[in-house]
Amino acid sequence: MKKAAIGIDIGGTNTILGIVDLDGNILKRNSMPTKTKADYHSYMTALVDLIKETIEPLKGKVEIIGIGVGAPNGNYYNGTIEFAPNLNFKGVVPVVDFLKERFEYEVIVLTNDANAAAIGEMIFGGAKGMKDFIMITLGTGVGSGIVVNGEMVYGHDGFAGEMGHTIVDPNGRDCGCGRRGCLETYTSAPGIKRTVFELLSEMNEPSILRSVSFEDLSAKMIDKAACDGDVIAKEAFDYTGDILGLKLADAVAHTSPEAIFLFGGLAQAGELIFEPVIHYMEEHLLNIYKNKVKVLPSKLPPGDAAVLGSSALVWKELG
Amino acid sequence: MKKAAIGIDIGGTNTILGIVDLDGNILKRNSMPTKTKADYHSYMTALVDLIKETIEPLKGKVEIIGIGVGAPNGNYYNGTIEFAPNLNFKGVVPVVDFLKERFEYEVIVLTNDANAAAIGEMIFGGAKGMKDFIMITLGTGVGSGIVVNGEMVYGHDGFAGEMGHTIVDPNGRDCGCGRRGCLETYTSAPGIKRTVFELLSEMNEPSILRSVSFEDLSAKMIDKAACDGDVIAKEAFDYTGDILGLKLADAVAHTSPEAIFLFGGLAQAGELIFEPVIHYMEEHLLNIYKNKVKVLPSKLPPGDAAVLGSSALVWKELG
Repeated sequence: MKKAAIGIDIGGTNTILGIVDLDGNILKRNSMPTKTKADYHSYMTALVDLIKETIEPLKGKVEIIGIGVGAPNGNYYNGTIEFAPNLNFKGVVPVVDFLKERFEYEVIVLTNDANAAAIGEMIFGGAKGMKDFIMITLGTGVGSGIVVNGEMVYGHDGFAGEMGHTIVDPNGRDCGCGRRGCLETYTSAPGIKRTVFELLSEMNEPSILRSVSFEDLSAKMIDKAACDGDVIAKEAFDYTGDILGLKLADAVAHTSPEAIFLFGGLAQAGELIFEPVIHYMEEHLLNIYKNKVKVLPSKLPPGDAAVLGSSALVWKELG
Repeated sequence: MKKAAIGIDIGGTNTILGIVDLDGNILKRNSMPTKTKADYHSYMTALVDLIKETIEPLKGKVEIIGIGVGAPNGNYYNGTIEFAPNLNFKGVVPVVDFLKERFEYEVIVLTNDANAAAIGEMIFGGAKGMKDFIMITLGTGVGSGIVVNGEMVYGHDGFAGEMGHTIVDPNGRDCGCGRRGCLETYTSAPGIKRTVFELLSEMNEPSILRSVSFEDLSAKMIDKAACDGDVIAKEAFDYTGDILGLKLADAVAHTSPEAIFLFGGLAQAGELIFEPVIHYMEEHLLNIYKNKVKVLPSKLPPGDAAVLGSSALVWKELG
């Protein structure tokens, strides 16, 4: 019988579920809202129902071998979500224990969403066969997953790989984490928006973006303006690439990866972001690392990446 | 028969050799100058003679099980020293191959000096039993060795762990590597000297260090002045601790270690440096990491650390 893993991505808005085979085919999808459940227990009960409902039609055709969960502030060692700022669940939430009491699969694991994306890239994407690489997710926030010697770096506490919260400038922009100048405040979707507003205040060049309010401005609009030759929008991508390139150079000086994969909304701007990131990373790299590290777009399909990554946790665990 | 490993530390000035048992006892020491040999072949020939001469009196009493070499720009994968700026040997130097042709030991390995120090800390020092830690060497330069899941992080190319060349300020101080603002330009022995001169230019406070030239000033003098209450010297340690604390916080966001060990001249300043480093690291840490990461002095004896570390490479290799 064909084997498959359940991949679950717990996002701030929606929880997405997919049954995925070893080739990365999604045999079945499902989803439910995350936020409507006020407390953890009712949410988890609904999630268990969703899992049962989704696997029911596959019974006898597919052998489910495990569940992988990707979640913000997910802790691999404890199988818990811990103090996730964007979820309703407060404190430390024992997701894996809850699932283990209700399912008998050999593998039930959880990690944070960026780590899940990294493992997805390793099992199904562009990092197949790579032993040392970094995955950077450039979305509403900036996440990262670091792989060394073919293994995910979880660190002593299970929370390794928060490159979005390395510091660009200790006196820089306010970050949602309570500190200032984190990478995330510059190279996320809201980050490039902030950069546009900084540039609008500093530069005199005309720009189509001068007619848009902070609330109305989106990363997509900046992308389009840059493609249309808007000087401020192009400069915003250059500035973003400079800062990301600098911090990628720092990351290389830590774990010296073969490749760095960029994933998420900002990465979809293509050359607009890759060109400056690669240029500035090379400029900031120590000599011994120059012209060695590939900066590549993720090969995971954007819509399915989270579910593929979460299911990949199971395949990775089974080696 | 008692087993022992040969540890060799190739420094810019001297090459030091020790025969070390599994308890970290140095059974025999020897050394020779590094720089007097103009070319690689004559240096390596002298080194082989030195090894033979040193092990000769132990024959029949001790079984030598391998050779570990620590060297600047040492590459673990290739067993080579590559483009080391402080050595006479130019280009890529195949140290391990040279030794393998002349000795039949099961293990002959090489890595850079900071990695060797990290493995020394793991086998003989304060990192015994730790699976995730970072070693920072604060000497003439700043080196680092990163251990994840109990394994040294060598990276894709064998050159991982150059935290001394992560960038504090891309427009900062000139670095010997050709770039600007590397951590090494602030937190090495020459770095704190530069900081004193920066502070002497900025502050009006009297200081005993105002009578000393740049050439005459040493890190030891700054240490002594700070102990005597000199405001500039104390401020220099605070400034150094701030910058090191910031970059350690970044390092934690990469690999989330259990502990960070500080080693080398600057670390010997004790509380003068540990107090501000810990204070500022905690200040700069993302919430989830706060009050978790120990910052500790290396437990390796300063004089023997290099040889212990190099020999530990062999013990580590044999598991």
